[in-house]
Amino acid sequence: MQILDSTLRDGAQAEGVSFSVNDRLEIARILDGLGLHYIEAGCANPKEQEFFRQAAALHLKNAKLCAFGATRRKDSRAGGDNNCRALLEAATPVVSLVGKSSALHVHEILQTSQAENLAMIEDSCRFFSQKGREVIFDAEHFLDGWALDPAYAIEALRAAAKGGARTLVLCDTNGGSLPWDVEEITRFVCKEFPDSTIGIHAHDDNGMATASTCAAVRAGARHVQGTFLGFGERVGNANLSAVMPNLQLKLGYNCIPEENLTRLTDCALQIASIANTGLRGNTPFVGARAFAHKGGMHSDGVLKNPASFEHIDPAAVGNRRRLLVSEVAGRAAIYPRIQRLYPEIDIESPVTERVVAALKDLEFGGYSFEGADASFDLLIRRCRETLPSFFELIGYNVLDRLPYENERSATATLKIRVKGNLKIAAAEGEGPVNALDLALREALREFYPVLAQVRLIDYKVRIMESAAGTESQVRVLITSSDHARQWTTVGVSRDIIEASWEALVDSIIYKLLE
Amino acid sequence: MQILDSTLRDGAQAEGVSFSVNDRLEIARILDGLGLHYIEAGCANPKEQEFFRQAAALHLKNAKLCAFGATRRKDSRAGGDNNCRALLEAATPVVSLVGKSSALHVHEILQTSQAENLAMIEDSCRFFSQKGREVIFDAEHFLDGWALDPAYAIEALRAAAKGGARTLVLCDTNGGSLPWDVEEITRFVCKEFPDSTIGIHAHDDNGMATASTCAAVRAGARHVQGTFLGFGERVGNANLSAVMPNLQLKLGYNCIPEENLTRLTDCALQIASIANTGLRGNTPFVGARAFAHKGGMHSDGVLKNPASFEHIDPAAVGNRRRLLVSEVAGRAAIYPRIQRLYPEIDIESPVTERVVAALKDLEFGGYSFEGADASFDLLIRRCRETLPSFFELIGYNVLDRLPYENERSATATLKIRVKGNLKIAAAEGEGPVNALDLALREALREFYPVLAQVRLIDYKVRIMESAAGTESQVRVLITSSDHARQWTTVGVSRDIIEASWEALVDSIIYKLLE
Repeated sequence: MQILDSTLRDGAQAEGVSFSVNDRLEIARILDGLGLHYIEAGCANPKEQEFFRQAAALHLKNAKLCAFGATRRKDSRAGGDNNCRALLEAATPVVSLVGKSSALHVHEILQTSQAENLAMIEDSCRFFSQKGREVIFDAEHFLDGWALDPAYAIEALRAAAKGGARTLVLCDTNGGSLPWDVEEITRFVCKEFPDSTIGIHAHDDNGMATASTCAAVRAGARHVQGTFLGFGERVGNANLSAVMPNLQLKLGYNCIPEENLTRLTDCALQIASIANTGLRGNTPFVGARAFAHKGGMHSDGVLKNPASFEHIDPAAVGNRRRLLVSEVAGRAAIYPRIQRLYPEIDIESPVTERVVAALKDLEFGGYSFEGADASFDLLIRRCRETLPSFFELIGYNVLDRLPYENERSATATLKIRVKGNLKIAAAEGEGPVNALDLALREALREFYPVLAQVRLIDYKVRIMESAAGTESQVRVLITSSDHARQWTTVGVSRDIIEASWEALVDSIIYKLLE
Repeated sequence: MQILDSTLRDGAQAEGVSFSVNDRLEIARILDGLGLHYIEAGCANPKEQEFFRQAAALHLKNAKLCAFGATRRKDSRAGGDNNCRALLEAATPVVSLVGKSSALHVHEILQTSQAENLAMIEDSCRFFSQKGREVIFDAEHFLDGWALDPAYAIEALRAAAKGGARTLVLCDTNGGSLPWDVEEITRFVCKEFPDSTIGIHAHDDNGMATASTCAAVRAGARHVQGTFLGFGERVGNANLSAVMPNLQLKLGYNCIPEENLTRLTDCALQIASIANTGLRGNTPFVGARAFAHKGGMHSDGVLKNPASFEHIDPAAVGNRRRLLVSEVAGRAAIYPRIQRLYPEIDIESPVTERVVAALKDLEFGGYSFEGADASFDLLIRRCRETLPSFFELIGYNVLDRLPYENERSATATLKIRVKGNLKIAAAEGEGPVNALDLALREALREFYPVLAQVRLIDYKVRIMESAAGTESQVRVLITSSDHARQWTTVGVSRDIIEASWEALVDSIIYKLLE
């Protein structure tokens, strides 16, 4: 089974989702590590093009990069088309070309003749296949088009195949098709094109994208498109983190190596953290609540026999059972992180015990170390040894006002004890967190010149409990870099400034511990 | 088609969901108004029992109340069983009884004989049917039980039918069954029990509950269970707000009166507000993003012909199309938003021109109105007319400090001019934004008492340009609610407090303009 992830293309179409070039590179690295076969991204604007330029340095082990674009414009040549040129310049081994396969769209949207559309498809596919690219043809609106004019929909596929497309993808662009129709149509197409790989690209507008995708595979599709967390325009795309375990654990297809499937939950958390969306607790398979048992009868049953109230073993997708009455952070899950820092420490050691206990306390208080590996490393180190006290906060005051002068709305004053000295510093900043950051650097400068290398490169804020509005807990993630490495730290508080302060302090200590 | 909503029973099992008696009554009223047939609630504890006592006064027009409980305990009599007595005392016209239909569960969980389990089912059903109650039998784990021992699963249903149950419900309790299996098994059961109504009760653990429910209906099921927003243990139950429009608009079954279907989105918002969970934007059919178009090509297409990128007419479920505002979206994309507020304004009018120009300027300055419809409506109105000046900021000071006293880290003082008065107010808060919000409400309270209805229900912060760290632009989205509606506003600044202030102010003006 071939899996194509479109998080960087269709996923970036989701309202509220926006990826920087660094985000894109990081996501590509994660998906490649999981063993997916294709990573698709757009190449229509400079940010997208920059991704492909830098992606070459990722040296992907499993996935092929795939640049996405439309077939050539009507009444032109592929070689002279700007879009096609941008696709070519992305210099990827694979190209996915989207073209019309619905007669309605040819007339009303494209406003050209059926013959010209077929020529656009065939020409464009040939242009790239002759240049040695593997071509995936995305037949836009294939399923709706089939309902209107099945013969034309098939002709569109045939034009792509003639042009050299290796894979023909049936797109349910509007997301309204029903799984049994998808299955029947896919079966027909598979018979019609025995020499092509048939793919499925479903959207979840009717809430059945996972089912439609699996139905297409039952009918013979061997190429599956989706986005890792279901990000996508409107309701979203088929969610690969649900599709893959269904295909692999329930239908018996091999999508990714079995041992990688156990990292599914971890990858989902990482991608959600990069997208700053959080991972919905009730996401199938990978959500924090996917195997959480609340009802007494269910908790009881699951302890007598897990299969009694669980459809799969949560460990198969790297998730874990949670009995909501007495939640215990899994020692087995935490131990590998400890071992990475202290190879000599045993899973039974008191240090492991202390980390588990500390984590439980902190999580109870609203912390979450997802995506904040540097802070978690500091937590482990503090459970093992007394870290040097690089500095100690006596107190800070941050004043923010409107209207303000000179574009500096905030003033921070700060008092710390550092290497036996009392040090007071003040700074103005663009906002309270920036002022505090500048004041802290000012106070530490003469004692730790190495900090001049550290730059903040990302700052993300999430509300932990949205129900309570501005009174809810705030979780701040700060990513810092010293050009050689980057690391992420976390702070949690009801006060956004205090949460930011915690994350700032961890970031600096992490650097000083080197 | 019979629809049974279990929001008050299975839905209340969801982590983070908890309903007061009043919440329960309100939800029952909403579901009844929509035309659902059964409203199921538990009756195991005093809060649940109180609901049934007060529910009689609701005088439901469409729905029958249904009390849920288990079959009698093993080796006892239904008449002498506490659970059965509580069920009886709920005094509902309908009772749903859950019993085991999986041989595994009879042995391992119930720890009794297969014969005793059948007697428990038959006795309990007979006990209630002889007392004149309509009995629905929920065959727990029916689909997994069938896989192990289909003959025994059928015997369990037969025992219920013999006991007088009118409806036999096939439960996919673990949520792992596949739609095509559900369809095949349901078809068999429907043939086997031609005189009973066959029901389906699916859970969404594999992400296919909507599909499985529809598949069962295709096979002959005529009773559908779910929860209105999919609330439920673990991943949740089949989501009725997705199942019903699929059944009605795509499969041609009549679930609720057609005119009521147009209130689906409204009901979803109300129930989400009562549950205090917010309604996920990407919920199929009823979410705010379910018909939102971002990509240039999609926005373009949907304007040429809505069917080109929409699987149903959003109005059919009371939702609406949204063209996400962004620089790439031209006048054509923006005009429908103007027209909704001012039907008389022409696409060529200077107002349209001014909105496009203002939007371009603001987006250049880092704004993005995506997801902030209320702020965008205000922008349009400001381009058309001079809005009343409800209040005017003279200035604010926010002081945030660490360490702090009394859990209130921040103090805000604020000076505004309101209705000719100078008003100074101060408040302490959990963080600067909370303090500022409280001070503003304090200052406005006597002038605009209607603001007491407004609650902040979500607060999100994003960095616009992640590369610049704590100096980057911050975008704050605030979602407010007055129980009837919810609206989202935006603020952008390098200072998180100023950005929050802008979004707060827009939120309040939006309410006051009503």
